[in-house]
Amino acid sequence: MEKKILLSDCPDDQGLIAKITNICYKHQLNIMHNSEYVDHSTGQFFMRTELEGVFNDETFLVDIDQTLPVGSHRSLVNANRRQRIVILVTKESHCLGDILMKTYDGSYNIDIAAVISNYNTLATLTEKFDIPFHFVSHEGLTHEEHDKKVVKIIDSYTPEYIILAKFMRVLTPNFVGSYPRRIINIHHSFLPAFLGARPYHQAYKRGVKIIGATAHFVTNNLDEGPIIDQNIKHVDHTFSSEDMVKVGRDVEKTVLSTALSLVLEDKVFVYGNKTVIL
Amino acid sequence: MEKKILLSDCPDDQGLIAKITNICYKHQLNIMHNSEYVDHSTGQFFMRTELEGVFNDETFLVDIDQTLPVGSHRSLVNANRRQRIVILVTKESHCLGDILMKTYDGSYNIDIAAVISNYNTLATLTEKFDIPFHFVSHEGLTHEEHDKKVVKIIDSYTPEYIILAKFMRVLTPNFVGSYPRRIINIHHSFLPAFLGARPYHQAYKRGVKIIGATAHFVTNNLDEGPIIDQNIKHVDHTFSSEDMVKVGRDVEKTVLSTALSLVLEDKVFVYGNKTVIL
Amino acid sequence: MEKKILLSDCPDDQGLIAKITNICYKHQLNIMHNSEYVDHSTGQFFMRTELEGVFNDETFLVDIDQTLPVGSHRSLVNANRRQRIVILVTKESHCLGDILMKTYDGSYNIDIAAVISNYNTLATLTEKFDIPFHFVSHEGLTHEEHDKKVVKIIDSYTPEYIILAKFMRVLTPNFVGSYPRRIINIHHSFLPAFLGARPYHQAYKRGVKIIGATAHFVTNNLDEGPIIDQNIKHVDHTFSSEDMVKVGRDVEKTVLSTALSLVLEDKVFVYGNKTVIL
Amino acid sequence: MEKKILLSDCPDDQGLIAKITNICYKHQLNIMHNSEYVDHSTGQFFMRTELEGVFNDETFLVDIDQTLPVGSHRSLVNANRRQRIVILVTKESHCLGDILMKTYDGSYNIDIAAVISNYNTLATLTEKFDIPFHFVSHEGLTHEEHDKKVVKIIDSYTPEYIILAKFMRVLTPNFVGSYPRRIINIHHSFLPAFLGARPYHQAYKRGVKIIGATAHFVTNNLDEGPIIDQNIKHVDHTFSSEDMVKVGRDVEKTVLSTALSLVLEDKVFVYGNKTVIL
Repeated sequence: MEKKILLSDCPDDQGLIAKITNICYKHQLNIMHNSEYVDHSTGQFFMRTELEGVFNDETFLVDIDQTLPVGSHRSLVNANRRQRIVILVTKESHCLGDILMKTYDGSYNIDIAAVISNYNTLATLTEKFDIPFHFVSHEGLTHEEHDKKVVKIIDSYTPEYIILAKFMRVLTPNFVGSYPRRIINIHHSFLPAFLGARPYHQAYKRGVKIIGATAHFVTNNLDEGPIIDQNIKHVDHTFSSEDMVKVGRDVEKTVLSTALSLVLEDKVFVYGNKTVIL
Repeated sequence: MEKKILLSDCPDDQGLIAKITNICYKHQLNIMHNSEYVDHSTGQFFMRTELEGVFNDETFLVDIDQTLPVGSHRSLVNANRRQRIVILVTKESHCLGDILMKTYDGSYNIDIAAVISNYNTLATLTEKFDIPFHFVSHEGLTHEEHDKKVVKIIDSYTPEYIILAKFMRVLTPNFVGSYPRRIINIHHSFLPAFLGARPYHQAYKRGVKIIGATAHFVTNNLDEGPIIDQNIKHVDHTFSSEDMVKVGRDVEKTVLSTALSLVLEDKVFVYGNKTVIL
Repeated sequence: MEKKILLSDCPDDQGLIAKITNICYKHQLNIMHNSEYVDHSTGQFFMRTELEGVFNDETFLVDIDQTLPVGSHRSLVNANRRQRIVILVTKESHCLGDILMKTYDGSYNIDIAAVISNYNTLATLTEKFDIPFHFVSHEGLTHEEHDKKVVKIIDSYTPEYIILAKFMRVLTPNFVGSYPRRIINIHHSFLPAFLGARPYHQAYKRGVKIIGATAHFVTNNLDEGPIIDQNIKHVDHTFSSEDMVKVGRDVEKTVLSTALSLVLEDKVFVYGNKTVIL
Repeated sequence: MEKKILLSDCPDDQGLIAKITNICYKHQLNIMHNSEYVDHSTGQFFMRTELEGVFNDETFLVDIDQTLPVGSHRSLVNANRRQRIVILVTKESHCLGDILMKTYDGSYNIDIAAVISNYNTLATLTEKFDIPFHFVSHEGLTHEEHDKKVVKIIDSYTPEYIILAKFMRVLTPNFVGSYPRRIINIHHSFLPAFLGARPYHQAYKRGVKIIGATAHFVTNNLDEGPIIDQNIKHVDHTFSSEDMVKVGRDVEKTVLSTALSLVLEDKVFVYGNKTVIL
């Protein structure tokens, strides 16, 4: 008995749930959990089906492919497979530390293949956990050159996802284009408020009463990619912008952690500039 | 084109989603939204299917009944039907007021058939909204006698649900037995903390940092019925028990409001002492 | 024995707390609660002192004035005084309804002197509570002319505060200038995200996972006034922009309610474009 | 220029704020931040005063002691002193890991003197951070004997606080009595709900919609000590008790983290069975 997840993403059509679940039934696969969503404004259908049974992937997918309408995406993945990520960081350790700990205690079923940074600051922490650390200084390099070096290292590890755990540089279009829907960033504000640099400083100046963080897929529109998760903390007049940075760390790591869990559990569909989370 | 909701609640079986959705497809009913849940520990299956189309209820339900296993419950309801409730109150107006307002502005698609109380306090407020108010004093009556009088009034209105919007009396088993899964209570604590009387006073004495409220179906085990919704507010040492009561009002009305919405939208299944919310 | 609140707002100076509390002590006034804040970045001092005792306001304030540095603001107000507000609305009832109910049940110690609107929609609701409703259509009037008519009505009631409870028009500078720090608005987004019109529509398009509301004092910079309170609700991909509007109502009324409580309890100092809440 | 914090805790008396702040003024100490609270029900006064200046501790405290009424507690501590803690754990790493990371990145200004456990599970993690790990098996020992061994190790490190970061044993009265108001525990429920063992299992059986965690000082009444912080997460019917355990970890580490920060910043007064947090 294996556990797999069928992900279907296609133009809506009559009887889709019936057709897909019929195939599961025919192949004697038990549906442990099924979630679906139709965006009626655009007519797009999404379904995530947790299956248990004895799989013949090939014949099952042939049936699925004959059923789904033209323009469909579908995939069948092992529910408990171990995924591989590469983490990019600059100098702050709170997001990296949280991922290291959750990997260590088994909360995430992942291999952290490597940590890459343009500073050496987090080498010691990374190496405590016997994970390769790559220091790729950006000094003396163009943005393109630096990104190329980083991409080359990433590719050598063939990761499923690239996590920007407070990587404080904008990626070049070539970099972003290499990993569509596979780069996850944590932005230190509740987007779309406080786009760009120094959001806590902006928040302090504006006198806001909540600060937030946003985890999103990276696209070539800075801070505009599909949002996976957001959350906030209440602040008040006694908070300096440094205090906001400090409190913000907790929101950032929580939001990135939630987003990463959702992605690793194959719950996140990307659709235009949005996510559907099933 | 009508919108209806099919609610299925039965022992789990192979291919249930396929079978039910097949029938919908066969009857040319579009599934606008489908949610299901299987409690694998007990093998119970729950499904809520929002349908759109031209319904022949009789033939559709014959097909459904032939498909579902023995011991199933199912119902087919109009999605936009106007439901009828009776509200029981004592002296506090915040929950009643919130329901009145949300009915007034169309947030709830309900008729408040009547408000019943053992005090006269809320007559004026109720009557501002042209709703019958029944004052049924408990003085000089046994608990049984009082409840009988109240039940008689309730029955004259044939409501779908009875809402205890801060009704500060324990109902007799006969009362509760008359409306299984149809009485909703707001309890002023996050159950199971602070069962029974004066929960804010207990909370104050214990020095808690959060207070809460719980909306639940009423059963004959006091404060033990299936929980529909719970929420909390943060408090601190500066809060007297009166302050907690005051802040508690906001949580109470919010939680009752959420629970009532869920119930009115036919999203709440009761299962043993728990709810499944689809 | 009376209860009064002394509010001090002045350039910071050595020994200010000692000096002010000495005067209270000398006048045999008990400090029931004292909060202070110094903005060290700008050297401004704020203190809110709840006092109990037999007051001779004149001699007490002479002492206070001799003590506070040049450029100080101070006021002494009765803690339990009944304040008077005027509410401006357009068509939506949820914020107005909440204030009506909280006034009705004594949660707010206020008189709602009048409700003014450019539509007639909320006349019936207002009049249920025996409060004057003024319908001032904006049709055929310039913005200036309409505002003048509204200001004239407001002034006839001499309110402490003007509450914009979903008043969907921008006020003219003359209007705003007439009531500095006395107009409170509820904006339907967590500012500074989604400034301007149709924030829920913007939020839907952006695919955010939280929506929010902001209560702030109105200044002549649209949506830029000092923020009093903000809060959020979580949303997901299933929310249409209409659903967001609906859920947003609960956040809006909660945030406006919190802000109004804070202001009525004399806890809010305005300082530049920010608030200090003691 | 030094920064110190004066903590005063005494029976309420007329003019206490004036008297204490006068002494600060006389000693030319600037009050950077002052918070006070009077519990009017019991007549107890609490004040926390952040001071900056050139201190002569001895003469300053002589003045303070002459001013405060009989039965007072006061202390003067360096604001930026590095505190020393010992952590007790069993097998779960999430709370320990969070404290390790926050110490590593400077969020906590502490030395983790040692980690002690009745299992060997967390030795590797602890030693990654060059912190002594003491494995003290409880096998073959009475509860008293085991606690004595642990106390002996703790005492060798002279810590300010002992943190029970998921230490799943009840401490003996002798142990608790050795460190009054210095042992902080994280309990995996929102007390007083689900006292005792297996709270998530209890929560699952009860069908609650929120789970929580409570950080409190340990006293000899199990799970009854003064609460420092509490928080919650929303759950639903899809959560098994194992899922609740997993989600619970995030609340537990957050609540313990908040409590530890408050304690380290000298903001927590213990008063009877409650805390006052200034």
